[in-house]
Amino acid sequence: MSTAWYRQVGSEGDVVLSTRVRLARNLTGFPFPDRMNAAQKQDLKDKVFAALKDDSESLRLFDVAALPRREAVSLAERHLISPAFAECDGGSALFLSEDEGLSLMVNEEDHLRLQTFGAGLCLEDCLARADEMDSRLCDKLHFAFSDRLGYLTQCPTNLGTGMRASVMLHLPALTESKTIPLLAGTVSKLGLTIRGLYGEGTRAEGAVYQLSNQVTLGITEKEAVENLKGVAMQIVGEERRARERICRDPAYEDRIWRALGVLKTARLLNHKECMRLLSLVQIGASMGLLDVPAETVTALLTDVQPATLATAAGKDLDAGERDTARAALVRERL
Amino acid sequence: MSTAWYRQVGSEGDVVLSTRVRLARNLTGFPFPDRMNAAQKQDLKDKVFAALKDDSESLRLFDVAALPRREAVSLAERHLISPAFAECDGGSALFLSEDEGLSLMVNEEDHLRLQTFGAGLCLEDCLARADEMDSRLCDKLHFAFSDRLGYLTQCPTNLGTGMRASVMLHLPALTESKTIPLLAGTVSKLGLTIRGLYGEGTRAEGAVYQLSNQVTLGITEKEAVENLKGVAMQIVGEERRARERICRDPAYEDRIWRALGVLKTARLLNHKECMRLLSLVQIGASMGLLDVPAETVTALLTDVQPATLATAAGKDLDAGERDTARAALVRERL
Repeated sequence: MSTAWYRQVGSEGDVVLSTRVRLARNLTGFPFPDRMNAAQKQDLKDKVFAALKDDSESLRLFDVAALPRREAVSLAERHLISPAFAECDGGSALFLSEDEGLSLMVNEEDHLRLQTFGAGLCLEDCLARADEMDSRLCDKLHFAFSDRLGYLTQCPTNLGTGMRASVMLHLPALTESKTIPLLAGTVSKLGLTIRGLYGEGTRAEGAVYQLSNQVTLGITEKEAVENLKGVAMQIVGEERRARERICRDPAYEDRIWRALGVLKTARLLNHKECMRLLSLVQIGASMGLLDVPAETVTALLTDVQPATLATAAGKDLDAGERDTARAALVRERL
Repeated sequence: MSTAWYRQVGSEGDVVLSTRVRLARNLTGFPFPDRMNAAQKQDLKDKVFAALKDDSESLRLFDVAALPRREAVSLAERHLISPAFAECDGGSALFLSEDEGLSLMVNEEDHLRLQTFGAGLCLEDCLARADEMDSRLCDKLHFAFSDRLGYLTQCPTNLGTGMRASVMLHLPALTESKTIPLLAGTVSKLGLTIRGLYGEGTRAEGAVYQLSNQVTLGITEKEAVENLKGVAMQIVGEERRARERICRDPAYEDRIWRALGVLKTARLLNHKECMRLLSLVQIGASMGLLDVPAETVTALLTDVQPATLATAAGKDLDAGERDTARAALVRERL
């Protein structure tokens, strides 16, 4: 668990927390999941299980509907599955690689949702690993594919490549300088979208954002990934320059130090405040102001989440218990 | 300096920061200071200097008007002189004992203002030391005294004993439970008054209050001091019970811990916030929650004040420099 990608710091790790590539695939001979009955879902699952028979050592099978809810939600908090998939009521299945760098959801919005993950900026690597698994599945299953449209998907926004690549960006300085709305307008013209990963609107809790491609038609996966990478690197540069400016402000330096002080001492920490303070500590660590390993902060960003906290405790926690457990975990780590 | 009473913790020191007894005295043959000319002020000073000739080893003479303003104001911040006396433009003088436990202002509101100080609750001791010096001065100077009214003073509220005894109380829990206005009403019926030492109104910064006697006529000094002591001890008991209640609240415990965290890390601290946080740390220390010596907090309550900070730095500081110096001092001490 401790070496999972979401607890590591990768390339451009001061700004890029992680990378994800997702492929949507559907099988011929079945309706889309929304229109499938239980027997059809089981039939489809059987076909996928058979196709993955040789991978049973490297891929673990999860019956998400049978997991305690906190564990299912924790999978979503770690971005291994979609939030909707955590709420599924049977008929679906999840395969997860041992290192949690690859997941395959069966009977989610599409028949198959294949995802690969990595720390930092690693789009080519994620795409290569997704392609490799996609090819092996393609050999054994009949994917619905149109020469004109490409891969057929339940939602037309995924038609074509069926690929959604995304990078999780930590942008505290651009958030502070209120540059995100402008950035959102610019990237949308480039076929990309940026949104806050936690919290509502553009003011994301913890200043964590997801930048992803929107266009899946008339473009190859490689082109889409190259476009995303180029824009991501530009944003990384802007964030770094904004950090240098902002860190010269004594009031901001003071906020960074205080954030560490509060995290090291607080007895109660709600999720929202905790993310905000961790974000400040992360920028302080990345600027060399604080002597806190970046890995420690990155791991905490995942581990302080409600269901992941409860999963670690092995029992359900009410809001007060969570705030206490969160504060204790943060004190211990820092 | 480090052993001055305002840096020590005395009897009932978890609640009572310090005690002060002040005697107002005037000499016959002179108008009150407001109506004196420069020659008369000098004449009076000469008389007092002569009377204190034998004490020149134990009493240091200060020409407050000639001090750098920061040092004069720092004397007021340490309560050794009145704020008005720090602003005086000559014609006055200050005698201060080596241990700063006794001060004598010449030509303040009255000709003489004799004050004794001590850490914690020590009214009898302060009164005894004030009486002793008063007797020695009385042997050499002619005090204006009426058999009917007692000591004559410029302001009629001091007529009679001319004595004002006060204790500085740290009442964070009673402040938190909004009990102070009720308390203020009660003590006024007992001939006492309570007021915030810093900040406006009853919500004192740092929850530090001054409880003092109001009545100076028809009562002996001893009776006034006994009355004050009795009421002070009742308030001490109430504050302690309130602290026990409040410290069972996890949210309050959290605030105490965070206060320490912020004080240990902040790079900028304004006076108001600093007093508020020190107040929380003091209650945490007094309840055994924090491992911070009470003396450290008590000394900081004095040393973080603006002019005392500048005096320690040996130069005038602007607001930003003060906030930086204050934060650095607090980090160093804690």
